[in-house]
Amino acid sequence: MNKNNNAKLRVVSLGGLQEIGKNMTAIEYGEDIIVVDCGLAFPDDDMLGIDLVIPDISYLIKNASKVRAILLTHGHEDHIGAVPYVLQQINVPVYGTRLTMGILANKLSEMPPKEIPDLYTVEAGDVISLGVFKAEFIHVNHSIADACAISIRTPVGTVFHSGDFKLDVSPIDGNMMDLTRIGEIGRSGVTLLLCESTNSERPGFTPSERTVGNSLEQLFTQYEGHRMIIATFSSNVHRVQQIIDASHKHGRKVAVLGRSMVNVIGAASELGYMNLPDNVLIDINEIKRYKPEKLTLITTGSQGEPMSALYRIAFSEHDKVKLAPNDIVVLSASAIPGNEKLVGRIINALVKNGIKVVNDSVAEVHVSGHACREELKLLMSLLKPKYFMPIHGEDRHLYANKEIAEFMGIPSNHIFVGEVGRVLEIDRRSARFNGTVTSGKVLVDGSGVGDIGSVVLRDRKHLSQDGLIVVVVTVNMEESLILSGPDIVSRGFVYVRESEELMEEARKVALRVLERAMKRKVRDYMQIKSAIRDDLSKFIFAKTKRDPMILPVIMDV
Amino acid sequence: MNKNNNAKLRVVSLGGLQEIGKNMTAIEYGEDIIVVDCGLAFPDDDMLGIDLVIPDISYLIKNASKVRAILLTHGHEDHIGAVPYVLQQINVPVYGTRLTMGILANKLSEMPPKEIPDLYTVEAGDVISLGVFKAEFIHVNHSIADACAISIRTPVGTVFHSGDFKLDVSPIDGNMMDLTRIGEIGRSGVTLLLCESTNSERPGFTPSERTVGNSLEQLFTQYEGHRMIIATFSSNVHRVQQIIDASHKHGRKVAVLGRSMVNVIGAASELGYMNLPDNVLIDINEIKRYKPEKLTLITTGSQGEPMSALYRIAFSEHDKVKLAPNDIVVLSASAIPGNEKLVGRIINALVKNGIKVVNDSVAEVHVSGHACREELKLLMSLLKPKYFMPIHGEDRHLYANKEIAEFMGIPSNHIFVGEVGRVLEIDRRSARFNGTVTSGKVLVDGSGVGDIGSVVLRDRKHLSQDGLIVVVVTVNMEESLILSGPDIVSRGFVYVRESEELMEEARKVALRVLERAMKRKVRDYMQIKSAIRDDLSKFIFAKTKRDPMILPVIMDV
Repeated sequence: MNKNNNAKLRVVSLGGLQEIGKNMTAIEYGEDIIVVDCGLAFPDDDMLGIDLVIPDISYLIKNASKVRAILLTHGHEDHIGAVPYVLQQINVPVYGTRLTMGILANKLSEMPPKEIPDLYTVEAGDVISLGVFKAEFIHVNHSIADACAISIRTPVGTVFHSGDFKLDVSPIDGNMMDLTRIGEIGRSGVTLLLCESTNSERPGFTPSERTVGNSLEQLFTQYEGHRMIIATFSSNVHRVQQIIDASHKHGRKVAVLGRSMVNVIGAASELGYMNLPDNVLIDINEIKRYKPEKLTLITTGSQGEPMSALYRIAFSEHDKVKLAPNDIVVLSASAIPGNEKLVGRIINALVKNGIKVVNDSVAEVHVSGHACREELKLLMSLLKPKYFMPIHGEDRHLYANKEIAEFMGIPSNHIFVGEVGRVLEIDRRSARFNGTVTSGKVLVDGSGVGDIGSVVLRDRKHLSQDGLIVVVVTVNMEESLILSGPDIVSRGFVYVRESEELMEEARKVALRVLERAMKRKVRDYMQIKSAIRDDLSKFIFAKTKRDPMILPVIMDV
Repeated sequence: MNKNNNAKLRVVSLGGLQEIGKNMTAIEYGEDIIVVDCGLAFPDDDMLGIDLVIPDISYLIKNASKVRAILLTHGHEDHIGAVPYVLQQINVPVYGTRLTMGILANKLSEMPPKEIPDLYTVEAGDVISLGVFKAEFIHVNHSIADACAISIRTPVGTVFHSGDFKLDVSPIDGNMMDLTRIGEIGRSGVTLLLCESTNSERPGFTPSERTVGNSLEQLFTQYEGHRMIIATFSSNVHRVQQIIDASHKHGRKVAVLGRSMVNVIGAASELGYMNLPDNVLIDINEIKRYKPEKLTLITTGSQGEPMSALYRIAFSEHDKVKLAPNDIVVLSASAIPGNEKLVGRIINALVKNGIKVVNDSVAEVHVSGHACREELKLLMSLLKPKYFMPIHGEDRHLYANKEIAEFMGIPSNHIFVGEVGRVLEIDRRSARFNGTVTSGKVLVDGSGVGDIGSVVLRDRKHLSQDGLIVVVVTVNMEESLILSGPDIVSRGFVYVRESEELMEEARKVALRVLERAMKRKVRDYMQIKSAIRDDLSKFIFAKTKRDPMILPVIMDV
């Protein structure tokens, strides 16, 4: 099968280790590379002004001729969000299930690749031949429909990539994670399990999506005389289905708010992922024709996103939905770490208006889409992998998953906790980390991709803390004369009208430096600028305990 | 008693409503004002560069001659942190218990008031006469020792201020919240209860501090052969006591890390709030003389604070403590909302080094200091107040507390959910909101207090997102000549060395505007600047989808 008997399988992590999001793993053997997932990440708090983060794919560009395909496990941003950026740089076929490819097509229409890529829609059970590899898509449960794990037959044995998964024994679409097939694959031997780690710190099993339906039923009964406003993730098609079903059962019409929610419900019902009872959906403009207690509004904004529909409703900025004291708002989602304060802001705005808010601390209106510890054990037990590599998570999650694998009897020296860029090499006898490839975070800001680095971010940080002071002076360098200025302009430092004296003193400090330099016939711009910066920052710090950026500009006439 | 029979009691909220922290309430009758608490708040995420936030006390300054005292319920920053700032502006006596005044004295030594203030140390049970008021300090349990509620007898009846409290039936110092005295006050009639709301969303009772001691005992047994590194709040004297006691019992020595931890243990043991067994504390420099498993390190940094002792240990930057694989780190604290990511960063750094981390999701190593719903009900039940005002919390907490009060039978129209600056007026027959006073947030940045307003913050935000471009040109305005420039300087926008072409084009855009203006003999600086700003920002946005701040400077020679 493989021409080169010395070849080793290389598992190259390009994202998703020691971080949340930006999931991407390349699997390489000889002249073939396949890539599983191609996601984006949201910026950390210290990446000021950055819109999103994508993986550095220098390694794939360098080896473009080897790359056979990108395989997508499911349609969440952290698994497909970087595909449009990657397709700008290399042309490679993309494979995924119907819903995944539907969402991707929508993205590509907004950011079309230079060359038209081959996009292939697969179904769970399909096996794709890609060079030396054979990739099989396997149905799993998750918080988006049509999610898959991918089992890859390689010359050194099977590599099983879990994707993101949970086990749902009573899923909304009736389609449980394919334990049988997974068991068969396990029986025939698995060399490496790449296993997601998101909930590896959580004990037990993640509850079924159906429990949310039961909670919703109870809420609809309890709040029979109230309008219900329910916020959730637009991509959670099954959640939306359950909200619509419960509404229908209780004789309510459903209106949908928020661009992404409207889009997803449209696409998902067209593709057959949702089953809409006749006449239950109404246009938002029609809600006035119904009594409030006969209405459910489904909306975006469950993460507190400013400008989302729920945000605008909560702050009385929505032109079509005005809050009424009888409204019940259900947050059918949990706050993603980092979003707690944004969500809190919406809750505050709602309760202040007398609105009752129901979230997952009050009722079971949300369940996770990720496997908890017992589910991870179940997967390991079925697959009995020789080697184990936790993926998708920060260090705390990866190491918690490692502990689980150890508990399940996988020897510690067969467990590989990696980092982005690190290469795991596997042959028929052994596995070990060996070397690294170029990798990392590429920052996207506006239309700029990768043109922002640490210097720019450091400057933004500095500017954000104490603002800046610009010192401008026009000189005749040759004759060592100050012709105009120095003028001082500041932004984000102090309120200038109330600090005229301070600014005038600062001007005098700069003037003194300049006069000294002119007197000594200093001709070196850098030297003069650095002297201005030193004296002025000392002066400013002594006066204000602040450290603004100081930017001297010298014009020579 | 009161000369003016028409006088009404005024409860003026200066902080602590619709926000966390900055707690401050003025109680006024005729010619007398007393103030309960005087705290600071930590800045919101959008207050870039701000160090802390204190209440606007214009109202007290205007009425300085009436202000009889500041009464402090306990020594946490959100209750005493603004005292040094207030004492800079008005001289007023301050009352508090011994530990509270000890901590305050330390603060005042760092920022001494202009006039030496009268500082009075009281004990629970003491009654202080202040104008028409009589204030009684009443012992409560909390996450700092020596905490009090304050019962204030006024001409319209008793106002009871809960401070921050919990009911601990087995407190470490043996001193339970004084339910008996509270019951007596309730029996003699309470007009208004000002009641903290922090945990009003949480059901049940907050567990006793002693449960943490039991968990620590278990951990010390379980991890007998390991060095223990335990992080907690330095002000939680009883927590620290329990860590020391458990260590002592298990034959360990204790070393203390972090400036505030060292200070607090010193002060608290001096003042008699801690009971240190002989020879248990050792200096951090002595740890090498003991086996690791015979050591406990108590450290600051439980909130993930960069530069705290725990942070430096986790990132291998501590000069005296190096991590070893056998170490156990206990986070004996929960992350304050907003700090989750900082704490997560430390956990990641620790597990990556193979360290086992125990936090409150794994073992009961932390309990809250605030009353949960049943405790709030208990207080209401003992006091049976005529009127109720929830304090200390965001809207969600205030309204949840209102719901509890309604459940306890207080009529809705006797419950007053206020906002900062709003005045609650009470006479013998009725209570109602009536009017507002100047109030709000005063931002402290460096040594500047209140000199930063919305314009400066807006500029900092703008600068932080896309950086800035400075355009400088020297002209001879009279003769409409460009003498030098325009020069373009940018910071935090793009990495200039890789964007030379863009910057050169930007220069040409500015040059074109200037040439046009010179040709038309425009003399109005503002007009020219605004034209540069318009054209350049359009150009930059088209090229980069970014919106940097554009700062034109024109020098006239």
